[in-house]
Amino acid sequence: MRTDEILAGLERGDTAALARAISLVENQRDGFDRVLTHLHPRVGRGTTHRIGITGPPGAGKSTLVERLIQHYRSPAGGDLKVAAIAVDPTSPFTGGALLGDRIRMESVSLDPKVFIRSMATRGAHGGLATTTEEVADVLEAFGFDRILVETVGVGQTELDIAATADTTVLVLVPESGDGIQTLKAGVMEIAEVYVINKGDRPGADKLQQELAIMLGMRRGSTFAHVPAHHGRPTASPGPSDGWEPPVLTTIATQGEGVAELAAALVRHRDYLAATGKLTERRGRRLEARTRAVVNRAVRQWVWEETGAAELLARGGSPYEVAAEVLNQVRRGGR
Amino acid sequence: MRTDEILAGLERGDTAALARAISLVENQRDGFDRVLTHLHPRVGRGTTHRIGITGPPGAGKSTLVERLIQHYRSPAGGDLKVAAIAVDPTSPFTGGALLGDRIRMESVSLDPKVFIRSMATRGAHGGLATTTEEVADVLEAFGFDRILVETVGVGQTELDIAATADTTVLVLVPESGDGIQTLKAGVMEIAEVYVINKGDRPGADKLQQELAIMLGMRRGSTFAHVPAHHGRPTASPGPSDGWEPPVLTTIATQGEGVAELAAALVRHRDYLAATGKLTERRGRRLEARTRAVVNRAVRQWVWEETGAAELLARGGSPYEVAAEVLNQVRRGGR
Repeated sequence: MRTDEILAGLERGDTAALARAISLVENQRDGFDRVLTHLHPRVGRGTTHRIGITGPPGAGKSTLVERLIQHYRSPAGGDLKVAAIAVDPTSPFTGGALLGDRIRMESVSLDPKVFIRSMATRGAHGGLATTTEEVADVLEAFGFDRILVETVGVGQTELDIAATADTTVLVLVPESGDGIQTLKAGVMEIAEVYVINKGDRPGADKLQQELAIMLGMRRGSTFAHVPAHHGRPTASPGPSDGWEPPVLTTIATQGEGVAELAAALVRHRDYLAATGKLTERRGRRLEARTRAVVNRAVRQWVWEETGAAELLARGGSPYEVAAEVLNQVRRGGR
Repeated sequence: MRTDEILAGLERGDTAALARAISLVENQRDGFDRVLTHLHPRVGRGTTHRIGITGPPGAGKSTLVERLIQHYRSPAGGDLKVAAIAVDPTSPFTGGALLGDRIRMESVSLDPKVFIRSMATRGAHGGLATTTEEVADVLEAFGFDRILVETVGVGQTELDIAATADTTVLVLVPESGDGIQTLKAGVMEIAEVYVINKGDRPGADKLQQELAIMLGMRRGSTFAHVPAHHGRPTASPGPSDGWEPPVLTTIATQGEGVAELAAALVRHRDYLAATGKLTERRGRRLEARTRAVVNRAVRQWVWEETGAAELLARGGSPYEVAAEVLNQVRRGGR
């Protein structure tokens, strides 16, 4: 399918064209930038909500995503169009578990208003967050109301990807190690909504308490005890950034707590919109992405169209090579 | 201290100059590339062994590192000069836990033949692996026999950093979640030496078995049972890459198993040297680093010395901005 045909297909709402457009973007094949530039005016203006879902392996994120999709597809959930992208930065080859998850998502995968895609690293280290955002842009321009981005794991790359969403959800389970002690500060701090999945298992209460203490400390409260609530704006801005992250309990396998999670997500999005933070965040995100796209384009140019590759092959200290490449680049790469 | 003075100080073996050189390199201040180019001929030729130590938070990595340092400093351990770098990619600000670890490392931190340094992210995402290698280069040129690089966490960035070592050690504990099921494939596959720390706790045997099964599968063996061994070359190269990763048990708080770990590390390094893989790896690593250093230098040039920043501020789709920047860069940035 040529780029023109893909663009025409997207205009018609053709799902096959959507799949082609996403492959094009994912692999940065010829025309991918034209597609994204074409769709650009339709991105970041509407009511689409991007939701990042992260947490340790085994926390039940995929089941929760499937249940959220079912909820959004139901009349009670708004009969919305939902897309889910599962991203595994540490699986360069098979994306093992994710493939299994897609099969498990059978209950929703045949629904034409549902789009599910797995992505794994394709060589380009550090570029996965950018590619994920680009795929999400295509989905948003196509008219999906909710875009769920699931990342497996709790490292820096996973956080970078989850942080491209409007709202980030951290899913934990009672048995994840010694509770939240085993999660690092950076991971714990990023989320706007916390979910204790498998909430009927032993240890759920303890985890709830630990989270409440952690969130109390983050808010700068002098009291360790935090009363239960469902996610609400705080009276004044402060260390909590004006939003008190709720701690919700779910049993994803039984669908318990999923409607409450969806409601908390709406509350967070409304909060972002009402305070102007949604526009602000999207602006920052666009700037960061433009930087990343520029860096990627320049990097490709340097290695493919200047003499950099030969200078690299000649050897020497990395700094000498860099100085020589820079000299060349300053002359326009020749 | 001027760059000349730092270089002279390094020649004299002055520890204050070493600390200055590392700060210079870590912050990429003026002259850092000159220092690294000066030291370049002394790197990657000697008997220095770089050891990456990674694993989930709470696995006892810092205690293990402290014990390894004590071992190397003892007559039985060879009375070696040891440096340790602790890297936390998700802690942009404080490096919280790591600071605590440094205090706990008091037993070795006053020894002049021991050098300990904590590093946290400093804005430059994705550049931490490069900076870690540069700091390790300074330490190697200064004459340290062992360089331990500890990373906290088990994400992609942590793996990238650990992979800059000659030998990568993965430290697990019996209670890390549901055993190795909670660790992802990419994490499990990278290590050359596995350590079950806190090996006296319940679940250690189960974890040992799970690891043996996983390693058996990796070797392509049809038998799940793998006999205990201490890390040895396999008869023929194959899926195991010619090295059977040992699974060792330690109780770091009591120093148990530390000498055995040190011995396994020597065996792996000897194996790498004997098979030519050490040279091969270092060559690949130097090439990857040169690419990273070139990209970093070009990136800085683009944003600081061309019109890219103004084009970014003007807005538009990231791909339009990238195309305009590229047009400018092709003309030498003006």
